[in-house]
This record gives sequence, C-alpha cells and structure tokens, in this order.
Amino acid sequence: MDIISTRNMSRDFIEDVLEKTKKMEPIAKAKKQVDMLKGKTLATLFFEPSTRTKLSFMAAMNLLGGTVVGFDDPRTSSVKKGETLADTIRVVEGYANAIVIRHPNEGAAALAAKFSEVPIINGGDGSNQHPTQALLDMYTILKEKGKLDGLKVTLAGDLKYGRTVHSLAYALSKFDVSFVFASPPSLRMPRWIVADLKSSGISVKEINSIEVKSDVLYLTRIQKERFPDIEEYQRVASAYILDEETLKELGEETMIMHPLPRVNEISPGVDNDRRAKYFVQSFYGVPTRMALLAMVMADI
Amino acid sequence: MDIISTRNMSRDFIEDVLEKTKKMEPIAKAKKQVDMLKGKTLATLFFEPSTRTKLSFMAAMNLLGGTVVGFDDPRTSSVKKGETLADTIRVVEGYANAIVIRHPNEGAAALAAKFSEVPIINGGDGSNQHPTQALLDMYTILKEKGKLDGLKVTLAGDLKYGRTVHSLAYALSKFDVSFVFASPPSLRMPRWIVADLKSSGISVKEINSIEVKSDVLYLTRIQKERFPDIEEYQRVASAYILDEETLKELGEETMIMHPLPRVNEISPGVDNDRRAKYFVQSFYGVPTRMALLAMVMADI
Amino acid sequence: MDIISTRNMSRDFIEDVLEKTKKMEPIAKAKKQVDMLKGKTLATLFFEPSTRTKLSFMAAMNLLGGTVVGFDDPRTSSVKKGETLADTIRVVEGYANAIVIRHPNEGAAALAAKFSEVPIINGGDGSNQHPTQALLDMYTILKEKGKLDGLKVTLAGDLKYGRTVHSLAYALSKFDVSFVFASPPSLRMPRWIVADLKSSGISVKEINSIEVKSDVLYLTRIQKERFPDIEEYQRVASAYILDEETLKELGEETMIMHPLPRVNEISPGVDNDRRAKYFVQSFYGVPTRMALLAMVMADI
Repeated sequence: MDIISTRNMSRDFIEDVLEKTKKMEPIAKAKKQVDMLKGKTLATLFFEPSTRTKLSFMAAMNLLGGTVVGFDDPRTSSVKKGETLADTIRVVEGYANAIVIRHPNEGAAALAAKFSEVPIINGGDGSNQHPTQALLDMYTILKEKGKLDGLKVTLAGDLKYGRTVHSLAYALSKFDVSFVFASPPSLRMPRWIVADLKSSGISVKEINSIEVKSDVLYLTRIQKERFPDIEEYQRVASAYILDEETLKELGEETMIMHPLPRVNEISPGVDNDRRAKYFVQSFYGVPTRMALLAMVMADI
Repeated sequence: MDIISTRNMSRDFIEDVLEKTKKMEPIAKAKKQVDMLKGKTLATLFFEPSTRTKLSFMAAMNLLGGTVVGFDDPRTSSVKKGETLADTIRVVEGYANAIVIRHPNEGAAALAAKFSEVPIINGGDGSNQHPTQALLDMYTILKEKGKLDGLKVTLAGDLKYGRTVHSLAYALSKFDVSFVFASPPSLRMPRWIVADLKSSGISVKEINSIEVKSDVLYLTRIQKERFPDIEEYQRVASAYILDEETLKELGEETMIMHPLPRVNEISPGVDNDRRAKYFVQSFYGVPTRMALLAMVMADI
Repeated sequence: MDIISTRNMSRDFIEDVLEKTKKMEPIAKAKKQVDMLKGKTLATLFFEPSTRTKLSFMAAMNLLGGTVVGFDDPRTSSVKKGETLADTIRVVEGYANAIVIRHPNEGAAALAAKFSEVPIINGGDGSNQHPTQALLDMYTILKEKGKLDGLKVTLAGDLKYGRTVHSLAYALSKFDVSFVFASPPSLRMPRWIVADLKSSGISVKEINSIEVKSDVLYLTRIQKERFPDIEEYQRVASAYILDEETLKELGEETMIMHPLPRVNEISPGVDNDRRAKYFVQSFYGVPTRMALLAMVMADI
C-alpha cells in the first residue's frame, strides 16, 4: 500500500486512518514507546527542507519501536552525482520496509511507487500533494468539531502552489462539506481541482479576502517569490493576515488552522486565542503518521 | 528542569550532577547500553556546526536506551522558510521528551525554555553559555585533581567570545577557586562576568600571556576573524600557544585542558605529555551528558 | 580489526567474510532485526556524499540491533573549524564501538586507524580504496557464478580514479582470475596496481573499449571533470556505454555489474535483461556490511 495522493482516497479509507490515529493518540501524548514496528526500518528521503514532516515521521517511527535511515539533504547523497530518482528508489528499497519521500517535482512520489517494492509515502511532491498533512488536518478538524460532515471550510492564501490545500480539499470532498476558497486572483485554486470538486457535488465559492465566519479557517503562507514586485506582494498578502484586529470579527466557533511554518500570516497575538488550533494540529502529525506507518508496515 | 546557564546553578546542583556523572562513567567506558531512557526521544536542534556536542549527546542517549531525532543544518529545516525559534520549539516539543539546542544567538536557549513544556538543554548559545561543556570540564578537573576547592585556574585565549570559558568561570565560582584570565586586551573576559565573579568573593587576576604554573591551564581557540589583520592576529595568538618549548616551563602538576576543536593552540607534540587531559576531557562529555539526560528525562 | 584496504587481505579472510555474508543474507532479505549488536554504536563520519554506503551501513547496523551516530556533511561538524582528522577520530572513538569513515584524501582511513582504539572501516578514501564495496562485489560474483576461481573479469571505464575497481582488482587477485582492463588511455589502471597484480601471477590485458565476452563486465562512471573539454569527454565516454545496441553483442553468460550511481553508462533499457545484476549487487551491500560490522564489533 502506498500513500501518494488524497485524490483517489475513499471515504472509508480516510475514516479508517482517522480511527487508527485515535488509537495512536494516547501513545503519542504519553510519548511512551510500543513494539508495533520493532525491528522495522523507515527510509526518509528528503530532497527538500522539512522540520515538521521529517521529525514527526522520525518521532512516530521511534514511538512504534522502529528505526529510521535517510538523508536530509540531496547534496550529501548520490543525487549530487546525477543519480535518477528511479535508481535511488531501487537501491533504497533494499534497505528499508517503507520509504517516505519529499521531492520538488510533482509526481515524484508516484514515480517512486512505480519502482519500489516497499510502500511509498508521499511527504510532499512539489505543488501537487501532501497527503499525510491532509490526514492530520482531517483528524484535527474531527477532534475539534466532532464531525467532518456539514462543515463550511475556508482555505485561504496561496491555493495555487500550496500542496497542503490541494490534498486537504480532495480529502474533505469525500465528506459533505462546502468550500470557500480565499486567495489573490493570481493564486487561485487550480481550475482542474475546482472542476473535480464541483463534479463531486461540492459547493465552492471563490473570494479575494479571508472569510472569517466558516467552521474552519485554514490559512497558508503566501510566498514573496510568487510576485513580480515586493509592493504588489505586500498589498496582496495583507488581505490574508490574521491579527488581533481581524480576530475580533472571527466567528465564535471558527477554528484557526495553519500547516506551519507561518511567517506573518498569523500574528503571535492570536496564539493564545481558544480558537487557534495550529499547534495542536502540528502535534497530531505524530499519531496520524504512526497510524499510517503501522498500516503500511504492520498491516494493522 | 532546564539546563540553560551555569550562572545561577547552585553548588549543590553541580555536585549532584558530578556524582551522577560518576555513576554513568563505567557505562560510558564499557559502551554497554542500559534501559534507563528506553522509549524516550531526544530532539537535537543544531543551528550551528558541532561534532562533539551533537555526537556525544547522541551517544549518551543511545547508551541510556533512548533515541534521537533532529537536524544538523538549519538549511534543511523550516527555519529556511522563515519560521521563528518559538514556533519551531512549540512544534518540536510535541515530538520529544527533551530538546538540546545550539543556536548562534545569545539567549536562544532561554527563549526556547519559555516556549517549551519539555526540558531544554543549552548546547551553546552564541558567545553566551555552554553549560554542559562546563559541567564536563568540572568533572574532568574533579577526576584529575580529586577536588574543586582550593584550585588556581587559568583560562586562556579568547575570553570575550568563548562561551565555554564563560560557563566554566561561573561554575567554578561556586567553589573556592582563584582565577587567572590570560588573554589579549581585545579579548578580555566581559566586564560584567568579572564583576559577578568578584562579587562572589573570587580572586581574579588578568594578564596578557599564559600562566603556566596554575593547577589548571584551560586553553581556547583565538579566531582569526576577531582581528582586523592577519599579522596582528599572528602576533597576538602566538602568546597563547602551548608547544613543546612552553611545555618545559609548565608546572609539574598543571593539567592542560581545551574544549576542542583546537587549531594550533596546542601543538601535537604536547599530546603525549602526562599533563595533557583534553582527550579524556572530551570523553567525559558522554557520562556528563548521560547524567544530565537522565536527570531531565528520568528524574533520577 | 580494521577494514582499510583489500590489498593486503588474504584469500582466507575474504572467504570468511563471504561465508558470514551468506549467513546474514536471509536476515537482510527478511528485513527482520536480530540482537547481535544490541547496545552497540557505530559512528559514521562522511566527509563526502554517499547514499548507498551510508544508508546500507545504517540499515545493516539497525538489522543487527545497534544504533548509529554521525554526520553527513563536514560543514555541520568541527571540521569546518579546522579540526584535524586525527583529533576528530580521537574524540569520536570515545563515542562509538566502531567508526566508518569516507574521506576525500587517500590514506585517510589508514591515518584514522593509527589514532583509533576502536575498529575503523574505510567507506572510501579518495581514489584509493573502497574495500567494503569490493567485498560486496565479490559476494555478488560468487552468488551469480557459484565460484571466484577461473573467471575472466573486465573492469571498464575510469580505472585511474575509481576506488571501487582498485579495491575489487586486489580482492579478485587473491583468486585465480584473469583481467581485462578497458579504459581510455588517460584513465588507465595505475601502473603500480597493474605491477602488483602481475607479480601475483594474474593475467592483465589492457584495451580501449569494453570487452563484452567476459564472465563479468564491471562498468564504472567516467566523470566529465576528468577531461579538458566536453567533446573529448563525449567521444571517449561513448566507448564505455552499455545500451540496448551493445547488449546484443554481450556474452550469454556475461553478468553486468556497476557500483552505482550510474549516469549514462548503462541505459535503462538494459535494466530488465537477465544479465543485469547491479541492483541485486547494491542490495548485497546490506548483508556484506552486516558481516563486517559483526566481525569488527562482535568478534563473530
């Protein structure tokens, strides 16, 4: 079993992951190791920077009793010598029971899965997908809202290049949700994703500033590099910032999410608000990844 | 419990660490794993280069049966995306039972401790403090001299920017010692540290060349970058070099210490002298860090 | 015991390694951990990039129940501060039961062994030697051919700078083999190695293009940087490429090997040919390194 994309994940599969995540949560909270993956090895191939994804996979593997091999930095690997991804995968599959890969190219994880006999988990491929992030986001919403059906969800910021919102939109679309997509015109959700969602019968509304009355307000980082000049960036990005001022207008039950790292999308003054859930969301990466690792390696 | 600075450490606390280090020493020497921290995870966040501190913390954690997650290089982490230290810490505390942090900014470890619910250990913060180094230095002196009271200790080299000598000076100042601070005028011990020490009743003498008759001669590296021109550097640095020539004048019972890495402060010809203790000092990093890890994570 | 070079390895020692590798192979295939090195620590000091060597040593150590500490990148270690290799080794030997070192300088592993009280394994030193690669190559040949005596072996490509072929040539020379060395004139096998081989009574033939009728055809990468201009490189390198066209002329029983990473020396169309053995060869790195680790640390 590979974890490549949420696009073709069934509602049943997602619910199964969430249920298993719930069983892992007490272990992750207690930080007390179990033996479920004792003797198993996870390879982590990070061709791009990561803190959260890499460290939470390492922590998850440790908590399940397994070990990790891998690299952080393609400059320290044979990739520097010109090795293809297919070759790297065919070599590394001999060393591990499963592989997590993060790569700048869209489709890299799917390509890896084609060449690997061990399970591949996509840790982010370019602007395409980040399915384990989406599953931990789903778990966070379920924990906080008690349900996944019947919710109005606003995804805000860079919806064009943001792989976390692509994955989350598809995952949520297996449930009865309605979307508000809030982004600058130049960073709108890709047309084919919107078309996919609509053809699943999902309501999608697209707007140019954040909508503060949803059940879920999911903010993402707008990267400076996406804009031709800094003034244009500042003018645009300021409409997607949540600070103590905009907080006043936020819905009483609107939970605030962010995949982190944030730069200035959410000001530190928001952190102690009861609706701010981005740090607990980050923590749920551990039980969610424990569940996924156990599913692909121990067949639970 | 956090380990941030030796400045406010009590004599009792230091003696407690040294006693526990003594119990760890046979395990470190035998390199035989015990179960004391089995199932625990240490996060190592190194924002600056390290061999000794990082590897000895890893080895210490392994010997106690625990595991390590972390990064070596901020370029491979979300720090590259502009994440604040406070956010990194709030995320990583969810993944580990304790965090070791090395950071170029003074005060970084204290800041981390403010945001973390798990213990923070300072692995070096800019020119400020390196408390675990000081504790292993103390252990080395105790082992070699049999006591910490009544010693004359010379700290030599770069006393201005050297965090190891700052930490060691404060740690020793809880005991009955007298100091000789030997440094170029431009690299003298900061005035406020000297004032702190004197107000503790400690005798401090400041000189411009190394004093070879102390009980302890602690040398440190003088960095080229601190000097406007290379000739000035060479002229100044040469007064703080221990070679086979200066060795002849060294006190019969003067132990030679260095936090390592050394560049040319101690010539290789000194290595086999019976008074040279810098390699055993480096080894004591393992039992000292084992003791500290067990104290913060297993509450021994 | 150190593993520095195949030059002085006896036939008995090599046969012993291969026998132990055979016992490790089922464990490596099943990817099921045993306790042979439980509680032991391997230090991996990689001063140069590596995927295969580093990850397979990590995987081998994990499978034997041990743990790994180390660095991938000298920029994140004290080497950046100017520390000598001798000092790094004297420090790291205190942290581990054995050390694997990869270093750009020829003779680095031998130097390390001089300063270390724990076993040193050479993971590649400049253009000199890569003995653990040679031993896994030997194991691959033995597995595929059922014997090591009586074989005709072609080593092709960059024989001047290629440490894998230097090590393999010496290892094979302890058996009854004959060599074809196929390389551009500027990249011929060093004269002193050829002299050593001939004085062992080994037949050596040197040619300028690949010989496709041997029992073993061992290809290596020719690096662009070795040639003054790109056209010269392209003209020369093309004679050492195995593609679907040259495959037609390949001997029915000629096994194709490559230490990997490959760039374009073997075209992907060759991968599914039954004579292509480079991926299984890469996998044998795990049991071979398990055997070596167990030999140096558990004295099996």
